[in-house]
Amino acid sequence: MNSGFTELEEKGKAAKAASKKLAFLPTEIKNKALLNIAEAIKAGEKEILAANAQDYRECEASGMSAVLLDRLMLNSSRLESIANDVGTVASLPDPVGDIIEERKLSNGLQISKKRVPIGVMAAIYESRPNVTVDISVLCLKSGNAVILRGGKEALRSNLALAGIIQKAAYKAGVPQGAVQIIESTDRALIDHMLKMKGTIDLIIPRGGAGLIKFVAEKATMPVLTGGIGVCHTYVDKSADVNKAVAIAYNAKVQRPTVCNALDTLLVHSAIAPRYLPKIADEWGKAGVEMHCDKRALSVLGPVPSLKLVTAKADDWGKEFLALIAAIKIVDSLDEAIEHIEIYGSGHSEAIVTEDKAAAERFLNEVDAACVYANASTRFTDGGQFGLGAEIGISTQKFHARGPMALREITSYKWIIIGDGQVRP
Amino acid sequence: MNSGFTELEEKGKAAKAASKKLAFLPTEIKNKALLNIAEAIKAGEKEILAANAQDYRECEASGMSAVLLDRLMLNSSRLESIANDVGTVASLPDPVGDIIEERKLSNGLQISKKRVPIGVMAAIYESRPNVTVDISVLCLKSGNAVILRGGKEALRSNLALAGIIQKAAYKAGVPQGAVQIIESTDRALIDHMLKMKGTIDLIIPRGGAGLIKFVAEKATMPVLTGGIGVCHTYVDKSADVNKAVAIAYNAKVQRPTVCNALDTLLVHSAIAPRYLPKIADEWGKAGVEMHCDKRALSVLGPVPSLKLVTAKADDWGKEFLALIAAIKIVDSLDEAIEHIEIYGSGHSEAIVTEDKAAAERFLNEVDAACVYANASTRFTDGGQFGLGAEIGISTQKFHARGPMALREITSYKWIIIGDGQVRP
Repeated sequence: MNSGFTELEEKGKAAKAASKKLAFLPTEIKNKALLNIAEAIKAGEKEILAANAQDYRECEASGMSAVLLDRLMLNSSRLESIANDVGTVASLPDPVGDIIEERKLSNGLQISKKRVPIGVMAAIYESRPNVTVDISVLCLKSGNAVILRGGKEALRSNLALAGIIQKAAYKAGVPQGAVQIIESTDRALIDHMLKMKGTIDLIIPRGGAGLIKFVAEKATMPVLTGGIGVCHTYVDKSADVNKAVAIAYNAKVQRPTVCNALDTLLVHSAIAPRYLPKIADEWGKAGVEMHCDKRALSVLGPVPSLKLVTAKADDWGKEFLALIAAIKIVDSLDEAIEHIEIYGSGHSEAIVTEDKAAAERFLNEVDAACVYANASTRFTDGGQFGLGAEIGISTQKFHARGPMALREITSYKWIIIGDGQVRP
Repeated sequence: MNSGFTELEEKGKAAKAASKKLAFLPTEIKNKALLNIAEAIKAGEKEILAANAQDYRECEASGMSAVLLDRLMLNSSRLESIANDVGTVASLPDPVGDIIEERKLSNGLQISKKRVPIGVMAAIYESRPNVTVDISVLCLKSGNAVILRGGKEALRSNLALAGIIQKAAYKAGVPQGAVQIIESTDRALIDHMLKMKGTIDLIIPRGGAGLIKFVAEKATMPVLTGGIGVCHTYVDKSADVNKAVAIAYNAKVQRPTVCNALDTLLVHSAIAPRYLPKIADEWGKAGVEMHCDKRALSVLGPVPSLKLVTAKADDWGKEFLALIAAIKIVDSLDEAIEHIEIYGSGHSEAIVTEDKAAAERFLNEVDAACVYANASTRFTDGGQFGLGAEIGISTQKFHARGPMALREITSYKWIIIGDGQVRP
C-alpha cells in the first residue's frame, strides 16, 4: 500500500478514537479549547502570515487568477476576524445532549431523542485557509473529530493553522487526534479517503463544481454537497422599482465571488422599460458586465458607457462568481419559475414584488434551499440567519438544507428506558 | 441504449413531473387516495392472492427457503392487515407544510423553515410484497413520488399491488406518474437507476446486506441505509433475573426473522450462574439454538435437551434472522460495551440492569440508533414508537436515524420574507 494511504488510515483511526471521547467532552472544555484557539491564532500571526506569504508568492508566480489569490490571501485584519469568529462559535449553545423530543408510551416505555455528534468528518476544500479554522472549530464544538484536506495552493497556510489549532485544543483537554490534517497533496489520497467508510462518517467537499461532483459520485459514505449557487432574482411586474434596484444591486455587487451572489436577473416585460435602465445604470457604475437576451438589449438600447453583451446559451445556469450578470425578459411569473427550475441549482432564489399572491406562488413553487421575497439572496448565510456560524450551505434535501451550522452536523439517538417491557 | 434503460428514464421523468404537483396536493386528496388504496386492496384480494400464489409456487419449486417463502406469502388476513396499515397512514398528520421554526431578525427579515417533500424516491427491495404498499403510501402521504423495484421472486405480486395502488390513487386526484413500478427484473436496470441523480432524489434499499452495500457504494444520489441489525442484549451483574429472562426471550423468539431481534446475548460473569440456566431453559423450549463461548458452555454444563453449540469466531457480529443466539460471558460493563462497539451494526442494543449508573453509561456510550435499558430490542419500530408507520430503520447518522416514518422522508426549505432588505 502507498505509504500515504497507511498514514491516512492511521490518522483516520486516531480521529475515530478521539471522536469517541469527544462525544462526551463537557461543553466547558470545548469552549475553553475554542478560546485557546482564538488566542493562539492571534499570537501566531507572524508564523501564519509568513506561511501564507510563501503560498501566495508561489501561486502568484504560477499565474493564479486575482480572484483565487484574493481567496488565498491572509493579513492581519482577516486573521483577527477569523479569530473573532472562533470566539463567536465558543459563545453558541452546545447542541450535543439536547433532548429533541420525548414521550411516555402507554406501555410505560420512556422514549427520547437525544442529539449526538456524527463522529468523524472529513473536509476536502480549496483555496481559502480560513476554512481550516471554521471547520475545525465547528466540528470540535459539535463533538466531531475532523480530517482536513486542503488544497495544495494553501498547504503551508493550512499546516500552520492546523498546528496551532491542534496545540491549543489539546492543551484545553480535547482528546489527541481530534483534528487531523493531511500533509500530502497526492490526489490519490482523496480517492482513498472516499473509500474509508466506517472510519469517516461524513465528507464535506468545499470548492468548485468539479470537486463536488467527483466526491459525490465516488464517496462510499454520506456526502454533504452544496456551495454551488446559480441564483436568480425575478423582478415581477408589480415590483417596487427602487427596492428591485437595491436588491439586485446588492445581490450582484456586494460580494460577487460567493455562491449566493446573483447570476441571472429575470425581469417581467411589463416593468422592464421602467426598471432595466435603472439597474443597468447602477450596475454599470459598479463595472458589472451584462449578458442580455435580445429583448433586454432592445429595451436598454445601445449605451456606450455600459458593458452590454448578447447572452449566449450557456450564460443561463452559469455561476459567474464575478461582476457579470445574465439578464432575461420574461412574460409571466410562470415563465420565471420555469426558467429557475431549469437553470437554478437549488441554492437561493428571489422574487421582488408587491403582489402577495405572486410572492406566495414563487416561495411555494420554487424548489430551492432558500427562497426570498423582497430581499437580497446575499442573506443566505449561517451568520445572517442567526445560526452563528456555518460549515457550508447545503443544496441537497437529505439531512440539512441551506446554511449548516452546529446542529446540522449532529445526529441523534433514540433512548428507550423500560422496566422489563417486552413486545406483545 | 438498452430499451429497459429508456423505459426507466421515462418512468423517472414521469415521476419527477408528478412530484412537482404532488408537493402541493391538499392533504384531503392524499388521504382520499390512501383510503381508496386500502379499499381497492381489499376488493382486489382475489387478483392479488392469485398473483402471489403463482410467485409462491415458482419460488417453492426453485427451492426457496421456508423463511423467504414465508416472507413472500400473502393470505387473506395478511392482506387485510396491509390494508388496515394504509388506513393508519391516512389518519396520521400530513408533515408537508409544517413550519418547523420561524423568527424575525433585527433587520426585519422574517425567516421560517417549512417542511417540503424530498421529490422522487426509489425503493429497491426483496421478497416482501407488503413493502410495495408500505412505501407507496408513505411516499404519497409525504408528497413524494416513488419508483418501485421489487425482487423478481415477488414480481407478479408487486405488479398486482402496484396496479391497484396506481388506479386507486389516480382516481382520487393524485397526479399520474406518482407511483412507478419497474417491470423488468434485469439487474442492469439497478445499475442504471443508481446513476439517475437529478431524477431520483433518494434511494432506499431494503433487503440483505449485500444489496444494501452495493447500493450504498454505487449510488450517485443519497441512500438511506439500514435494516441490518446485529443486536445485543447485555445482562448486567445487577440485572433483575426475571426481567432479563423475559426481555431476552422476547427479543429472540417473538419474531426471529426481523432486524431488531436479538443476535448475541452478553452476560456478566457474576450473574451467569443464576441467569444463564433460566434463559437457556426458556429458549430451549422455543427451539433456540445457542452458540455459546466456552465459559457459557461450562456454566450451562451438558444439557441434552438444549441445542448447545460451541460458538465460532464468525458468530459474533452475525445477524441470524432465525432461532439462533450467540452467548458470551463478559466480566464487566466495559467489556460488553467494547464487544458491541466491535460487532454491533448500530441498530438496537439493550442493557438489563437495576443499576442506574450502569444503565446511563450504556445508554450514553453505546453508539446505536436505539439504545434500551430494561426493554426488548423488538420495540424498534415506527409503529411501536408512536410514529404510526415506518419506511425503514436507518442505521446511518446522516438525515434520520432509527425508525423512519413520514417526517423522516421530507426535507425543508428556508423562506425569507423582506421589504427590500439588502446585506450591509
